[in-house]
Amino acid sequence: MSSLKFIAISGTTGVTENLYIYEYKDHMIVVDCGVGFPEQEMYGVDLVIPDFTYIRNNARRLRGIIVTHGHEDHFGALPFLLKDLKAPIYSTKLVAGFIKNKLEDYDIKEADIHVFNPERDVISLGPFKITPFRISHSVPDSVGFAIDTPEGKIFHVPDYKFDWTPVDGRPFDISKAANLAASGVLAVASDSLGSTTPGYTESEKEIEGRIEDIVRRAKGEVFFTTISSNISRMQQALTVAKKVGRKATFVGRSIQSKTEIAKNLGYMSYSSSLVVSVKQASKMAKNKVMAIISGCYGQPGSNLYRVAVGEHDTFSVEEGDVVIFSGDPAPPGTKDNVDFIVDRLIELKAEVHYYDLQEDLHVSGHGSQEDIKTLFALLRPKYFIPIGGSTRYNRAYKKLAIGMGAKPSDVFELKSGDIVEFKDQGAKISGNLSTKEVLVDGLGIGDVGNIVLRDRQVLATDGIAIVLMQIDRKENRLLKRPDIISRGFVFEKAKKGLLIRAAKELRKKIERKKRVDRKIARIVAIDFLEKYFYKETGRRPMILPLIVEV
Amino acid sequence: MSSLKFIAISGTTGVTENLYIYEYKDHMIVVDCGVGFPEQEMYGVDLVIPDFTYIRNNARRLRGIIVTHGHEDHFGALPFLLKDLKAPIYSTKLVAGFIKNKLEDYDIKEADIHVFNPERDVISLGPFKITPFRISHSVPDSVGFAIDTPEGKIFHVPDYKFDWTPVDGRPFDISKAANLAASGVLAVASDSLGSTTPGYTESEKEIEGRIEDIVRRAKGEVFFTTISSNISRMQQALTVAKKVGRKATFVGRSIQSKTEIAKNLGYMSYSSSLVVSVKQASKMAKNKVMAIISGCYGQPGSNLYRVAVGEHDTFSVEEGDVVIFSGDPAPPGTKDNVDFIVDRLIELKAEVHYYDLQEDLHVSGHGSQEDIKTLFALLRPKYFIPIGGSTRYNRAYKKLAIGMGAKPSDVFELKSGDIVEFKDQGAKISGNLSTKEVLVDGLGIGDVGNIVLRDRQVLATDGIAIVLMQIDRKENRLLKRPDIISRGFVFEKAKKGLLIRAAKELRKKIERKKRVDRKIARIVAIDFLEKYFYKETGRRPMILPLIVEV
Repeated sequence: MSSLKFIAISGTTGVTENLYIYEYKDHMIVVDCGVGFPEQEMYGVDLVIPDFTYIRNNARRLRGIIVTHGHEDHFGALPFLLKDLKAPIYSTKLVAGFIKNKLEDYDIKEADIHVFNPERDVISLGPFKITPFRISHSVPDSVGFAIDTPEGKIFHVPDYKFDWTPVDGRPFDISKAANLAASGVLAVASDSLGSTTPGYTESEKEIEGRIEDIVRRAKGEVFFTTISSNISRMQQALTVAKKVGRKATFVGRSIQSKTEIAKNLGYMSYSSSLVVSVKQASKMAKNKVMAIISGCYGQPGSNLYRVAVGEHDTFSVEEGDVVIFSGDPAPPGTKDNVDFIVDRLIELKAEVHYYDLQEDLHVSGHGSQEDIKTLFALLRPKYFIPIGGSTRYNRAYKKLAIGMGAKPSDVFELKSGDIVEFKDQGAKISGNLSTKEVLVDGLGIGDVGNIVLRDRQVLATDGIAIVLMQIDRKENRLLKRPDIISRGFVFEKAKKGLLIRAAKELRKKIERKKRVDRKIARIVAIDFLEKYFYKETGRRPMILPLIVEV
Repeated sequence: MSSLKFIAISGTTGVTENLYIYEYKDHMIVVDCGVGFPEQEMYGVDLVIPDFTYIRNNARRLRGIIVTHGHEDHFGALPFLLKDLKAPIYSTKLVAGFIKNKLEDYDIKEADIHVFNPERDVISLGPFKITPFRISHSVPDSVGFAIDTPEGKIFHVPDYKFDWTPVDGRPFDISKAANLAASGVLAVASDSLGSTTPGYTESEKEIEGRIEDIVRRAKGEVFFTTISSNISRMQQALTVAKKVGRKATFVGRSIQSKTEIAKNLGYMSYSSSLVVSVKQASKMAKNKVMAIISGCYGQPGSNLYRVAVGEHDTFSVEEGDVVIFSGDPAPPGTKDNVDFIVDRLIELKAEVHYYDLQEDLHVSGHGSQEDIKTLFALLRPKYFIPIGGSTRYNRAYKKLAIGMGAKPSDVFELKSGDIVEFKDQGAKISGNLSTKEVLVDGLGIGDVGNIVLRDRQVLATDGIAIVLMQIDRKENRLLKRPDIISRGFVFEKAKKGLLIRAAKELRKKIERKKRVDRKIARIVAIDFLEKYFYKETGRRPMILPLIVEV
């Protein structure tokens, strides 16, 4: 018998990497296709992408990919999926601009992108009738979807907040959402990230005056940093620059390309005389410039990082200069990086306005508890699926739903790969696809797994000691003293004695054996050196025996 | 001519690792001797300790070490200093208990520890007359010092807050401090960590009722976690356990030893029937137990970590159990670890009260902006030295001082090793000792430096490829195809082809040379393989050529 399936490939336990499937009989649509960011112990990994196995295996059933908004964790994995299969993509105009730009980065030239107008278009894909409606978020042209399915209507409302005075003047289309919901809502799958934050999220508009106050008082250059997708925040910075009589300049490849796309498509508006090139800016008086610069999370190598450590080609910081951080607060794992550059900038005598000072120079793009309750009240769904968060947010979201009358069994806290099956107005978790995380490292997709990561962890912690042994193949004995070379273990110049002593002791150990072959040399070397080095140094480097038979 | 020198060996830019020197003519005292914690990029490093070079070189002038309170970042480096020299140590009773325990851990048996009573004792060391006074902090028996020197009186007030209702009933001795200050204060060196936090820091007492509410409602076992030095917080947990009719148990070696010391010395009070062993607790009904457990920062391997991942020998978590986090918020770099175990505990269906929920189940041990201003008003010093913070806190502290009438030049934002010289009522930064951070890794102290760390970083990111080449020494040619072995680079089972292709190509490259020796083989191998692997994989493993001459 047929049923509607909602599958969270990923996005419900790791905040990012959003990818959800709606499936009915022979038809499947994908909502969003985002990247995730490596955790601390994923040494050397650049990106994490969703597991496309199920989609690839069912490619002939895929009717389309619909994208909600222009953040990397919602569209950034498209190049990896489109390597394997073709499918039409549906998005708003600005998001389509971002997607095309991203695909070009990965040398994907042909893509079937359809732009819809969220005020009037409806997308029909197989049995799914998808009606978009505007939502507010920290990037313009974001939407939610009302998805009509044979089992009922599901609202898919990713990252949103209720901002009645957004910078672009286009607020959450609450009236359209309410009308769509009037006929009854089977389920909502919606943003849970604000579920532990009390109150309502403040409007973007509120922060503009505070930024203006700071910029107006600044005596030197102003550096303003936010994430490159935050078109509205950059628009606000431009508005402020104009008001106080400064020229703006965009510093950073991603900021330059995103603002260019947004301006060309009509999502930013400013006179071209307001913005000057980096080169022009560098020749102007410092108090006439406002640099909108990348690196709000202190990413090593970013433009602001290079300014902070005094290694930027064009810009430097001195007393009188002002730096304003206006991104969302640092995501997990990046706080140390931000702290590092804030301290460097303060040392350079800049006046720094950073997140910890709580000056309200940024607002979250995610609705808080009261926003979430407002959405629930608006849609009155039967079932609830928290998305875009992690375990803790799922639990807090569940509490909010229960507080508004839901039964605990009506809220689905999903792990990656979980399938919610809707049938005859009922719903249950009916299975799990046992998806795995796919790690991208350099050009390799999915080729870095547990073994490589475990090796990197050992190498990172205690380094490696390589022991080179030459064996006389005929006489089955060691030819000479083993050589030990190390990296990341001890400083060899100072500790050469340790390695030589270890080699001498190892030689004795091996020579006690009657018959020495590859296998014996290997086992004795690992066994002896592990113990010896731990006793002498308290460290456990990786021991790698290499044997040359002569 | 003689002057008073204040030297910040460390502790003014890294929050932890407190060690300050006061020096006059041929006399020197050390205040505090704490450890620091490794930053993220200090791969494999266990601890950071202050640079003792200057103290060692001037050991004969050292009159004593005075310790302010029982936190690792104020006394934890004593074992490392006492390896090199002997000096009397002065502290309060509880702190002396902690120090002895710490020295035993490092097998240091003889130490000259003098316990002073902060209500009545004065310590005279050379020209320094040191008068302690009680302060409030998150560990009992903490003190500040009024140090009379030939150049004037300096107040050394490390980690403190004004808590009029501390758990141990012994508040900041504000009246003694005021009396000591009445004769005029040359300078204050004081805690800056709260200088970016508005308002006053709340009293410890306030949180007890909130904890009690949660524990009273709990249906299953209660796990309560804080740092082991927070004797007062554990005392509060015991008080709550008694009120609600639960037995308490201490889980974790550090918690057990710290509470034992505190109880024996009279700093904790509870009837012995209230606390049961871990073994006894494991046999009792879950709703009769409150486990005070280590791991409040999610440290991998800690007791709470093992409970969260289902690997604890004694305890497990299930629906109905409650976990309360009541440490200070996670220090830099540990947030990911806390998040990890919170999510695991929620998955196990525990009710988790964690920091982000802002339920005020912990209070900082550090005074906020209003506390800092209160201290300034109390002491009215001429000069100000922020300690125990970092660059950003120094700057915020300076602003507070200026706000209360100080001249900018009267506030000293110090880097490690900076020397402030006081003379004839004047003060200036007169030099820097160019100290360095000393890294402890296993048994090695200071032997892990930049080269080893840089190697570990490369190894952590992209692994290593070792290329073994055999050269015919007489004919100056390669004997056979090089062998390439990798670790942490690619998964060899899947990518054996890549390594063999690289080896074949490398052989061709080398064989094109007329004459092959060690040096040529080495250079060609590094040069070729770096490029080849980057082109093929986008990664840059460390290339390590090993050459065997036959």
